[in-house]
Amino acid sequence: MALIAPDKETQIPDIVIGRLPVYLRALSFMHQQGKRTTSSSELGRRLGISSAQIRKDLSHFGEFGKQGTGYHVQHLIKELRLILKLDNIWPVAVIGAGFLGHALASYNGFEERGFQIRWIFDTDPTQIGKVINGITIQSMNELENTIELKHIKIALLAVPAVHAQSVTDRLVDAGVEGILNYAPINLVVPDHVNIGYSDPVVQLQHMTYYINSDDQF
Amino acid sequence: MALIAPDKETQIPDIVIGRLPVYLRALSFMHQQGKRTTSSSELGRRLGISSAQIRKDLSHFGEFGKQGTGYHVQHLIKELRLILKLDNIWPVAVIGAGFLGHALASYNGFEERGFQIRWIFDTDPTQIGKVINGITIQSMNELENTIELKHIKIALLAVPAVHAQSVTDRLVDAGVEGILNYAPINLVVPDHVNIGYSDPVVQLQHMTYYINSDDQF
Repeated sequence: MALIAPDKETQIPDIVIGRLPVYLRALSFMHQQGKRTTSSSELGRRLGISSAQIRKDLSHFGEFGKQGTGYHVQHLIKELRLILKLDNIWPVAVIGAGFLGHALASYNGFEERGFQIRWIFDTDPTQIGKVINGITIQSMNELENTIELKHIKIALLAVPAVHAQSVTDRLVDAGVEGILNYAPINLVVPDHVNIGYSDPVVQLQHMTYYINSDDQF
Repeated sequence: MALIAPDKETQIPDIVIGRLPVYLRALSFMHQQGKRTTSSSELGRRLGISSAQIRKDLSHFGEFGKQGTGYHVQHLIKELRLILKLDNIWPVAVIGAGFLGHALASYNGFEERGFQIRWIFDTDPTQIGKVINGITIQSMNELENTIELKHIKIALLAVPAVHAQSVTDRLVDAGVEGILNYAPINLVVPDHVNIGYSDPVVQLQHMTYYINSDDQF
């Protein structure tokens, strides 16, 4: 759930932008299953979103479907990837080489979805120099230089909550514009920087609404 | 982003339910900062959601604000926690004691937000019996018995993608009704089971829309 300000230039609400990757994931899954076409109703049923909402969201970006035949899955995937600027691979840095940093560096869900983890930073001398999934852990002393030299725009923040804001300040000063924060705290950043929060509790709290707790406690 | 079917009983759209935990997190942050009251406009600015949307979402559940004075932060927190069934602590099991399982068991963002991780399961004999954050890693052979005995309703699925569906089947058969899936695959479950997907790529793809990629590639 990203806390991103509405896009003032195009006037497309951020909440609409936030749904596009969800559509993209569902469409990619359909594509893997061999589906060639789909409809807003079918997509809506899979995602628990109304078909009218899906049509309205997509209409911000053009005409993608045809009356009667619906959406061409592969074409819509391609268009959504262009809209979300995923036509190239974004190189990503992981900050923090603890359990979570290790998990992120080992995660194979980034492949073919627009991102590649290329750097991992940590302060712990016993970690620096070790290799995770082909990536050598670098010292945090090299953070700013590497970000500037490599034009790193995106970072995954996997440091303890107590360090999250100070590391964020360093990332932003060095040129990072998108941070996915795994620490359970809210970060303060300038307007041009986009923060996403990876917060399992928000998702669990969504589920508990639906779970019968009668025999639980 | 949970793929949960719309709530048929109350007719409140799932997308509305999904925003309540986001409101709850923002309100809890305001409460920590010492704020006693807030408004739908202030909340909306923080979250990039229109104030009208927030008022409409909350109106599904009753009257929480007063014209002119807005919302009483602590009262609204209490009401949202009741709606989301967070008035008791939900005990949670982690499946998989790899890097991610270790990270989840060490994560302190669950505290005071309605959840407590109490069990961790793995198949690896070298992991079983080890203690993470006070919790002893149990064998997957004990999975079904423990779920049934302890009435475990919620699990965090941190196993490799190739095992995610078969482990899910076991969880569901044993009585689990809510699964937060960290593996990058879609799971098939019966209607009464709620699946959430923790997918960093969906959040990164949301960000890249806003990032100028001109000098990136």
